Parts: sequence; structure tokens; C-alpha cells
Amino acid sequence: MADAFGFEVTARDAAARRGRMRTPHGIVETPAFMPVGTRASVKALTMRDLEGLGATIVLANTYHLFLRPGDELIGRRGGLHRFMGWTRPILTDSGGYQVYSLGDLRRVDEQGVRFRSHLDGSEHLLTPERAVDIQARLGSDVAMVLDECAAWPCSEAEARAAMERTARWARRNRDRFLALRAGAVDGVTPTNPGQAQFGIVQGSTFPDLREESARLTVGVGFEGYAIGGLSVGEPADLMYKVIGETAPCLPEEQPRYLMGVGMPDDLVEAVARGIDLFDCVLPTRNARNGQLLTREGPVNIRNARFAEDDRPPDERCGCYTCRTHSRAYLRHLATVNEMASATLNTLHNLHFYLDTMREIREAIEFGSFGKFRQAFHRTFSRRTPIT
Amino acid sequence: MADAFGFEVTARDAAARRGRMRTPHGIVETPAFMPVGTRASVKALTMRDLEGLGATIVLANTYHLFLRPGDELIGRRGGLHRFMGWTRPILTDSGGYQVYSLGDLRRVDEQGVRFRSHLDGSEHLLTPERAVDIQARLGSDVAMVLDECAAWPCSEAEARAAMERTARWARRNRDRFLALRAGAVDGVTPTNPGQAQFGIVQGSTFPDLREESARLTVGVGFEGYAIGGLSVGEPADLMYKVIGETAPCLPEEQPRYLMGVGMPDDLVEAVARGIDLFDCVLPTRNARNGQLLTREGPVNIRNARFAEDDRPPDERCGCYTCRTHSRAYLRHLATVNEMASATLNTLHNLHFYLDTMREIREAIEFGSFGKFRQAFHRTFSRRTPIT
Repeated sequence: MADAFGFEVTARDAAARRGRMRTPHGIVETPAFMPVGTRASVKALTMRDLEGLGATIVLANTYHLFLRPGDELIGRRGGLHRFMGWTRPILTDSGGYQVYSLGDLRRVDEQGVRFRSHLDGSEHLLTPERAVDIQARLGSDVAMVLDECAAWPCSEAEARAAMERTARWARRNRDRFLALRAGAVDGVTPTNPGQAQFGIVQGSTFPDLREESARLTVGVGFEGYAIGGLSVGEPADLMYKVIGETAPCLPEEQPRYLMGVGMPDDLVEAVARGIDLFDCVLPTRNARNGQLLTREGPVNIRNARFAEDDRPPDERCGCYTCRTHSRAYLRHLATVNEMASATLNTLHNLHFYLDTMREIREAIEFGSFGKFRQAFHRTFSRRTPIT
Repeated sequence: MADAFGFEVTARDAAARRGRMRTPHGIVETPAFMPVGTRASVKALTMRDLEGLGATIVLANTYHLFLRPGDELIGRRGGLHRFMGWTRPILTDSGGYQVYSLGDLRRVDEQGVRFRSHLDGSEHLLTPERAVDIQARLGSDVAMVLDECAAWPCSEAEARAAMERTARWARRNRDRFLALRAGAVDGVTPTNPGQAQFGIVQGSTFPDLREESARLTVGVGFEGYAIGGLSVGEPADLMYKVIGETAPCLPEEQPRYLMGVGMPDDLVEAVARGIDLFDCVLPTRNARNGQLLTREGPVNIRNARFAEDDRPPDERCGCYTCRTHSRAYLRHLATVNEMASATLNTLHNLHFYLDTMREIREAIEFGSFGKFRQAFHRTFSRRTPIT
């Protein structure tokens, strides 16, 4: 089953790559965006919605699923795919970022991360080995290593310490992963023998650290590599710079995943720098706050000026929401806090993200990604509301 | 357009009736259940869900829509169908029951109901004329008269007073409706010229009052008749008795609507007594609390004994939820309060209600409703949980 996973670059356009990632649960055409299903559910949607949107892979969160309903329970159900009724690929993060976000509730040492549950205060220890075990029980198609993410801003010394620990942990993550694959770990029954494991590059915004982190992580050897520690507060230009400096340090023939990023224009810029995979809560979380993302930019549907606007949210959009409903109705639903508001806005936002990725893939194939990128930025503004 | 509405009884089985209600937005096969879309949205669902479930008519609430976004705004949008993106029939209640439920926030006199909004405390006066006007702007296919509902229990004198006022208001409701239809009311633009209007029979649990109310209401003359004032706290047996005594007082060739009822066994019993139309928040509201309704009875999916149960909620159910998900997954979603829990549970409950109505219609056609009724009660229990 070690060859259940694979990746090939099928076309290039400057640094942008068009690829195909093979997993035990099917193919992911890249560049791809992964909707976030934190607790084995993409909020406000059902699986048929995700299928209808053409999502080919979703992300689930190890930290949340470990706490509820528990990785052992999901393992006994046959793994996350069977548990949640999703037959396509799943990537699980390691829980590292969630634990990092706990702030005062966590303490990191060489062994791992000690943290208190945000739910009931119970104390837990997450080690690289345990993060691997949990994800083996979940049976995702791609498991992420447990890493340490430095805050932004931070000193070079702090960034180096987190990066070096991440590199030492990478080795432990991989050793455990290989031991599990060899059936050499008692008490852990992997539910997806073809699972792949991605390493994570840290190093904050320091080019030398990023380069060193990439070298160390690639030295351990994974099926793919992620750039972590970005979109944690730094300006977009700086993020683009780090991506542009780090991506070339990663193997050409393996997938590159930019964790937790970002707005639509971020995705376009990251693809231009050689990124293949993305996840972000923005399209789903913002939908629940009434923000619709369109080619012109974000627009808040709660705004009073939409109260009598009979046009669809985006007149050029082919999603169910835009085909069926007016801004006036969506504004009403958002104003009175109907659950359908979250569902319809999420359908639209994910359609926009996934459709943008389809356009990106096509543009790379046709060698017109540069033009697409220019055209995208001409109309997209983070501030300009649609009229 | 006065003949845009019609009703014919196509089959009978003892007192049970199989019928067809014709409206400007299509046919409703009866007996029928109307999912409740209080604020122009059936909670946790989208229109495509309702279409997929085979809902042929939904109910919307005059009181809530009057407050937000306002009937005038909806009227300017072309009416409720266009506003909410629902092309099939809609019935609107008059707002009378919601105002009755406001308790201390309302005062009834002969002119109408003075009430304070539950949202901002603003004061409003709802009169029979105004209830007609609002519903004319909404453009529902069936409008309900404004009535006065007595509390339960109440004295015969109180029940009589509310019933007699309801009868006097019935006249005013109908006069206004006919004046609107004749185009003789300034300032109100009906958005559905083929709208029908149903009268409401009150009289609490007093047979004489119910009979008198039916006579007075039928004397005014409506396209259909509702039995109001039930399911307000009285025992089920007493409710069945009142339905059984009141339905025969209503015209054979016009639709009969039992307002706000009820549990699945209530529907079967009411059909047996000659009722054609139902609405109730139970299947949708209870879904959001984790209660799934099945042929065996209600079951709360939050129960810990479902945590590792890989079976669908109801092994004989063909709904999307039962085809796709396990009790274990649905229990997880309910426990962590994912929005998908409300959606999936609502899909199941409405499927169960609508499917039960389909079975009821078939049974009446085949002359086997008596057997269906027996079989239904043999398995359905309000207490027995599924195992």
C-alpha cells in the first residue's frame, strides 16, 4: 500500500504547477483547495453539498476529533471516511496549530505539547508519536506531522528554536509513521494502510531558517511538504516573499501545501510561487458572518443597501445560491439569523473558491496563468464592494 | 382569477378523504403536511431540500414576516414566492396564533390585537383587515383569517366570547378579502390574484360552540376551513374528540385544515376524522433538539448509547440522512452542535412526515386506510425508543 499515494506534475507555467495527487480515496487535481471540516463536518453543509460543489478533498482536525468523539471511537467505526460518510480524500492536520492557538492553555517541551482541553479543562499530552497514532486511527489519506509554530512577530532565536524542534520532531513523526506502516506498533490499528505523511517547514519570516528547515525536513523524507507558520498576522507581501523563497527549496516532484491560507488573491499568488494545496476557514467562517466572496471582492450581505436588491449576489456566478436567490432574500436570512443563511453563503463562497481553483488549473494547462493572475487582480479587491 | 383555487375529493375511505387542492402555484395532493417556514425559510433547509423531499406546499408566518422584512418590502419584490425562491404553493397564517402566544405583550379588543413586537417592543395593531392586506402583499396561495384563540383550559363563557369574536372577525376578514379581489382597496397591491382565503373554527373543547362556530364561519363563506385552537395543551384524546365532532360540520367538498397539529399519530387520527391539511413545527423543531421521528416512535440521537452504533437512524428509511450516515455520526454532530446536525435531522423528520402522508394517501385510494391506521399504531409509540 506504500504506493497508494503519488503525485505528478502534469503542466507548468513559470513557477505555477498543474498536478495530480493520487490517494487511496481518489485523485486530487491540483492546485486544489480543501474545505475545512474541523469536526468531521464542513460547517453548515452536508456531504452531498461538498460532492455537488466538486470538492475532491477535505481537511479535518486531529485536535478536535481527538477530544470529541475520540480517535479510538472513529477507529472502531472503520476510520474517518466511513464515520463521516465522505468517500473522497481527507487530509488531517496534526493538531499542532490548534494547540498553538490555545495560548496559555498549552506548554511545549521536547517531549511534546501538554495542553488543557478548551472544552472541559482536562489535561492531555500530544507528542509527535501520538499525533501519528491518532491520524492512523482516523485513516486520513494525508497525515500531517506534529510541528511547533512560532508566533509572529518573534525573534530569530525563537524562530530557530521552534524550527529546530520541528525538525527533531519530524524525525520522530516519520519513525512512528514507518513503524506503524510496518505493523510494529501495538495498540494502534491504522484504518487506511495507504496513508501518506507530509512534513512541515517552519522558520517564520527568516529566509535562512526557512531554507534550513526545508533541507532538514526533506532530509527526513515525506510524501509531501507543507509550509506552516504563515498567515499568523504577518502582512500579505511578507507572506508572499516567504512562500516565494521557500517553495523552491522543496522537491519539484512532490506536492506542496500552504497551510491555513487564505483570501482568494493569496491563493493566486501562492500558486504563482509553486503551491499545490490549500486549506482555509475563511470561505466557510466568513459565510456564517454574512460575507460573500466574489470576483470583485468580499461583500457583506447584511448591509442595508441589499434589502431591496433583486439581483443574485454575483450575476456571473453559477452556484445554487446565485441561481436561486436574491441579495434581498439573503440579506433577510442573515438579518434574522436563519440557518439557511449560513448554508447558502457557504455554498456560494466554497463554489467561488473551488471555481477559482478550476480556472487556475485550466490557465496553467493553457499556459495562460500569467494573464489569469493579472485579470484576477484587476477586478479583485479586498475592499471594493460589489454594486 | 377567482377560479385559480379549487378542491376535489378524489377518494374516500370511511371519514378519511383523498383530495386534490388546486392553487395558482400548483396542485397539492391531500391529505398533505405543510413544513413550517416561519420567516420565509424552513429552518436548517434550503429550497432544493424541500423540493427533493417532495414538499408540495409550505407554511409561512404573517406575524414574523410583517415584522421582518415587512410585507411591503416583500410585496415590492413581487410577493413571497419570488422573494424566497419557492415556486410551489404557500399558505400563510394570519398572525393570530403568534400574537396569542405573546401573552402579556398583547391586548385584544373588538378592533383587533394590539401587541408589542417580541424583537424591539414596538407597538402594532393587527386587525382582520390588516391581516388580509398583509397576506395580499405576501401573495400566498392560501390566506388565513385573523381569529381569536382561547387558552386551554378556559370557561365556556371565555370560549364563547373568543368564538363569537372570531365569527364577527370572519365577516370583516372576508369583506376585506373580497374588496381587495375587486381592486377596491387603495394602497394595497395583491401579488397573487388567485389567492384563496380559509376561515377558522374556534370554540375550544365545547362541542356546541364548535358546531356553532362552524355554522357561522361556513355562513360567511370561504374557499376552505380550518380547525384552530387545538394542540394548545389539551390531552390527545380530547383533541381527537373535538376534531371528530367538528370536521363533519364542515362542507364535504372543501378542504379542511387542522392548524398546528401534531405528532405523527395525531396526523393519522385526524385524517381518520376527515382532515386534509396539516402544519406543525414538531418535525423541524425537534430535529434541532436531536429528536428523530421514526415509525417506531421518537428517538433522541444525543443518547450515549448511539455513540458506537453504525446503523442508520431508521433501517427502513430511504431519506438522504439514513442512506448516508450512521447513528454514531449523527450523535457526534448533535453532541458538538454542528449545524449539519440540524439539517440532517430535519431532512429525516420531514421525510418521515411527508412519506407518512404519501402512505396515507395511497391507503385511502386503495381503501386500506383502516388497516394502515392499525398497523401504524401497532409500531408507533411516543415512548418506545428504537433499538
